[in-house]
Amino acid sequence: MKLAIVGCGAVGSAVAELAGEYGHRVTALADSTSATVDPDGIDVGTALDRKAEGRGVGTDGIDRALDAEYDALVEATPTTLGDAKPGFAHVRHALDRDAHAVLANKGPVAERYADLRAAERESEGEVLFEAAVGGAIPVLSTIADLGPTNVTAVRGVLNGTANFILSRMSAEGLDYGHVLAEAQDLGVAEADPTFDVEGTDAALKCVILANVLGDGETTLADANVTGITDLTPSALDLATDDGRTVRLVGEVVDGDGAPEVRVGPRLVPENGTLAVTGTQNIVQLETRHAGQLNLSGRGAGGRATATAVLGDVGRLP
Amino acid sequence: MKLAIVGCGAVGSAVAELAGEYGHRVTALADSTSATVDPDGIDVGTALDRKAEGRGVGTDGIDRALDAEYDALVEATPTTLGDAKPGFAHVRHALDRDAHAVLANKGPVAERYADLRAAERESEGEVLFEAAVGGAIPVLSTIADLGPTNVTAVRGVLNGTANFILSRMSAEGLDYGHVLAEAQDLGVAEADPTFDVEGTDAALKCVILANVLGDGETTLADANVTGITDLTPSALDLATDDGRTVRLVGEVVDGDGAPEVRVGPRLVPENGTLAVTGTQNIVQLETRHAGQLNLSGRGAGGRATATAVLGDVGRLP
Repeated sequence: MKLAIVGCGAVGSAVAELAGEYGHRVTALADSTSATVDPDGIDVGTALDRKAEGRGVGTDGIDRALDAEYDALVEATPTTLGDAKPGFAHVRHALDRDAHAVLANKGPVAERYADLRAAERESEGEVLFEAAVGGAIPVLSTIADLGPTNVTAVRGVLNGTANFILSRMSAEGLDYGHVLAEAQDLGVAEADPTFDVEGTDAALKCVILANVLGDGETTLADANVTGITDLTPSALDLATDDGRTVRLVGEVVDGDGAPEVRVGPRLVPENGTLAVTGTQNIVQLETRHAGQLNLSGRGAGGRATATAVLGDVGRLP
Repeated sequence: MKLAIVGCGAVGSAVAELAGEYGHRVTALADSTSATVDPDGIDVGTALDRKAEGRGVGTDGIDRALDAEYDALVEATPTTLGDAKPGFAHVRHALDRDAHAVLANKGPVAERYADLRAAERESEGEVLFEAAVGGAIPVLSTIADLGPTNVTAVRGVLNGTANFILSRMSAEGLDYGHVLAEAQDLGVAEADPTFDVEGTDAALKCVILANVLGDGETTLADANVTGITDLTPSALDLATDDGRTVRLVGEVVDGDGAPEVRVGPRLVPENGTLAVTGTQNIVQLETRHAGQLNLSGRGAGGRATATAVLGDVGRLP
């Protein structure tokens, strides 16, 4: 398949690097300032070298990538809230051309799901977004195979940064600020960690799950979200004394017909399934006919998330 | 889709019961002595009632089911070793007609994989068999999405009966014979438990994984298999003293080019990922780009396994 990749951060560049191995050809690659386009396949190495040197990936404008020859557009620009710009426009552009769209960007799927599905209905192209929830973990493909109506609830640890901080606080008895600084030093937390530690990122993933399971009208504004910034070592000690620990758990449950999204710190059994450590993610699906399924692995990281994007590409018709 | 279901044990009958909910129609259902066929859809309730009364599911011969009108044949007869009769013949019959085949039966996939793929190449139909490995757990679809060459090793607890016995022996300090009798009372172990406790069932699942990951020439004869019948409570106590426990672990690893299959009791960390309890199964995939993925859930049971069959049916073109 011919792929246009828009967004060249950790995920977009890993998709570009691995695409050939999966039998695809990258015909366009765009970062935030430039693009490079070639219907016979761009030279990915050269483009990424340029980017590493602080130049743009190419010398073309970004619109050239959107108008290039491709079967599927990979949307890997950063997640934005509200109207999900510019990601949503990129996806709609691809669908208008009857091309497929594969998203790693959570914004359009969490914030404009109904618009996204409406654009897909008008198109020959399909929309997939496995990479937007749980990185490498096959969450959405499993829900699709089960049938969304057969999944009654989803629960999970969906943010690696918050989980790393909680794991370290609990294991070492250190306070939040100390562990956050450590996580920032290690590159596990960003300079501005708000999105992760306030629960927004986990909530967006849960909103996407709610849209897949429900009527597609859920947005971040509907989610009940509490972060981990107010947790103290003493609260974690109390949990430990009781054989439990604290994790930032996201839940999608049936709330009187429509799915309800809740994210917040929860007590979980210390050696239980949800108590994943470090940057691991886990998703539990409660099903009508198959009991509980637990899926865990790397919820972030360029190459891990790129495998979910390329899995989606492989599933396109 | 129109489905012919051959085999009416726990899995076959659950597929028949759930098919309508997944939007499919059962046009034929066969047990070991009879069949019922209707191009407009059989009455599943009546057929299963007949079976519950000790009569056959219908009044037709089994061949009528194989020659009925269907898009996909569901092969759910019991697993047999060696030439995998009669399952393999059923599948080939469907493929010869250019229909698809979805297997819950491990025999043809473990013992005659090359023949199965050869028959598939000559057919318009496709062959899928998610239900043959790990029941409801999405093992093969995840490997397909990752690309088999990107999975470097598989490890797992793949037999619920053996795992139940080991969990109970370890938790209660009881000996093998005692716990086996208890498992038989509970219906977790069969009257003849050989297939489960000698490791054969887990080995067949690993052989299927080896065939998917490798050159497709692996059979049970190539597997190195040890069961759990010789384990003593004292061996389990020793493990516990060391913070570990024993599980019947199946592994598929790269053995000098071709995949190597090993099944046997292994020491695993007591609270580690592989130490699933009761009849749970778990599969760990080691991947080239996405680290380790852990998938756990119900590895057996009619309805749970039926969801894997129906997931396969949904993925057919």
